Amino acid sequence: MEVGEATAVANGFCMNEGDREISYANNSMIQKTVILKTRRILVDTIKDLFCNVLPTCIKVADLGCSSGPNTFLTISEVIGSVQEICQQAQLKSPEFQMFLNDLPGNDFNAIFRSVPAFLEKLKREKGDLIGHCSISGVPGSFYGRLFPSRSLHLIHSSYSVHWLSKVPDGVENNKWNVYMAKSSPPNVFKAYAKQFQDDFSSFLSMRSEEIKPRGRMILTFIGRSNPDPSTEFYGWELLAKTLCDLVAEGLVKEADLDSFNIPLYTPYKEEVSEIVQDEGSFEVDRLQVFEVDWDAGEDVNSNGLVLNKYERGQKIANYVRAISEQLLAGHFGDAIIDRLFTRLAIHEAEHLASNRGKVVTIVVSMTKK
Amino acid sequence: MEVGEATAVANGFCMNEGDREISYANNSMIQKTVILKTRRILVDTIKDLFCNVLPTCIKVADLGCSSGPNTFLTISEVIGSVQEICQQAQLKSPEFQMFLNDLPGNDFNAIFRSVPAFLEKLKREKGDLIGHCSISGVPGSFYGRLFPSRSLHLIHSSYSVHWLSKVPDGVENNKWNVYMAKSSPPNVFKAYAKQFQDDFSSFLSMRSEEIKPRGRMILTFIGRSNPDPSTEFYGWELLAKTLCDLVAEGLVKEADLDSFNIPLYTPYKEEVSEIVQDEGSFEVDRLQVFEVDWDAGEDVNSNGLVLNKYERGQKIANYVRAISEQLLAGHFGDAIIDRLFTRLAIHEAEHLASNRGKVVTIVVSMTKK
Repeated sequence: MEVGEATAVANGFCMNEGDREISYANNSMIQKTVILKTRRILVDTIKDLFCNVLPTCIKVADLGCSSGPNTFLTISEVIGSVQEICQQAQLKSPEFQMFLNDLPGNDFNAIFRSVPAFLEKLKREKGDLIGHCSISGVPGSFYGRLFPSRSLHLIHSSYSVHWLSKVPDGVENNKWNVYMAKSSPPNVFKAYAKQFQDDFSSFLSMRSEEIKPRGRMILTFIGRSNPDPSTEFYGWELLAKTLCDLVAEGLVKEADLDSFNIPLYTPYKEEVSEIVQDEGSFEVDRLQVFEVDWDAGEDVNSNGLVLNKYERGQKIANYVRAISEQLLAGHFGDAIIDRLFTRLAIHEAEHLASNRGKVVTIVVSMTKK
Repeated sequence: MEVGEATAVANGFCMNEGDREISYANNSMIQKTVILKTRRILVDTIKDLFCNVLPTCIKVADLGCSSGPNTFLTISEVIGSVQEICQQAQLKSPEFQMFLNDLPGNDFNAIFRSVPAFLEKLKREKGDLIGHCSISGVPGSFYGRLFPSRSLHLIHSSYSVHWLSKVPDGVENNKWNVYMAKSSPPNVFKAYAKQFQDDFSSFLSMRSEEIKPRGRMILTFIGRSNPDPSTEFYGWELLAKTLCDLVAEGLVKEADLDSFNIPLYTPYKEEVSEIVQDEGSFEVDRLQVFEVDWDAGEDVNSNGLVLNKYERGQKIANYVRAISEQLLAGHFGDAIIDRLFTRLAIHEAEHLASNRGKVVTIVVSMTKK
């Protein structure tokens, strides 16, 4: 990846904005499912964190918050859990200071325009039982410092930390692929693993400065089920296959495909715990692996009819488009995008016929030493 | 003002976004001049505030930050002043947590996209001499709570607090005017003064909860030079005159003009100090009144040629448009806007021929008791 592209990942890369059919807001059901599936860990962590001492103001950061219907889910969950603690112990509610972080290109305007409605709903539902809740947006890469030292009680991040700070160096020979794939040369697996190791270590080190002593961090990200990265099917193969189709048709230059790779890593659970241990700032409390369907809970349409494989393929292609369109358009240009995702939908449908379309997800909960 | 309109002021009203000829970013020279003119008070206040005790993290809020070239001016000034204190006392720089507030409709995306460049410039200029600077956006009306209790060292606001939370009640008889004017009935002056008293008192009361004990607040806003509000020329008369022209031409309904008033108040200096004293949370350290030209420092064009009165009139009309277009379009519809401001430019030019076009500005610096 060239310097310009690395900067693009850091400053410009983001989910599809707006409220269109292919926007992130309308294609983040899997992310919602994941947040709901990890709810228990968040609630338990909050109870554990605040059962003995309740600060006057609880400070929480959600990293990689994106925009859309999921953005306020974590905040709501935190406030609800704290309210339960207060009611049980007959304590006055603390105040809340919630920081929503994402890259500067994220659609913060969309989030901010829904803040008044969110706060009104909170007031309507909880009344005076809840202390004042201040919501801030913090633009910046979580591979750099974002918050003052020792300022946060809890850091949360869902489906973000798998994004790398850049495409790994030395993957130029990953021809006809856009990610680790069974046909990738061995150095590609090493380069991806090394980039994740570097990125995740710096992430931990930045956060360890920003979190209060004994503060908690809960991270959820895509992982893989096999220890050996060369034996896994990652799903991006279908995007590579589609791009190869477009090369064959002369719509994409072969050199452009050769130089494109997705800046994302799906670690095996042991890689995660090893990096946490080696970095040394946090101790792992819980690490769980679970699977979610790519079309999580959406295999029926709005009329309750079961979708056929082509409709499901289209949905999955929309999910992929919502998170990767900007990267792809930045590299290949806008002109091919519609055709690329129409074609991807077909490959996804054909793949669904013989595969379940599961996403391995890792959730790790840790405490600052 | 109807409930819908009050909500529009609180949630939707904002300066013209983007980078067009009539955007706020390109028409905020007067606001810049004001910030530069009050620089000395900001610097003195910071030196006074931090000369004895330097916290590990300095927390500052800028209320009504808008977007455009002025947004980072105050932050830069605060950091520069703290750096001077540290250099003189040979102390390590503290960290900074800067909160930029405006209504949820403000273009925070534009601000956030310039944060990386601002932080890089800061690093380039100050190097490791400056502690980490965290920049957050906080959407919401400053007539409600925005920040946790006792969390801020310094609150700053320039050219924002003159905006009221709504058009005063009981000004329905302010026919053919859009603001206080010499021809306004006496109840209109009372209603405007009462609304400012209520709004400014609640502003002080909200901020007194958010600021640390002995914390400082510096507010700059448009004021007036006469104690008697019925004797002043406010400038909005020219907008009223223009709207009357459009009524005469049948482009604006008379009833629409009758029901439109600008939700802004320009207090006399003694009103300000009285409200601060009555509210009771702050003591006034300094209160100064000064004048700035409406076309502050911009009476020459980019080629260095002195502008004629029509060119200056156009510039002033653009300034007025940048801050009031959204209010006007919300009430009268988009269709009349271009014609309205073309006509206003002519009235401004004619007015300039016999008047200086000065804006009375009040700056007040206070300490939380």
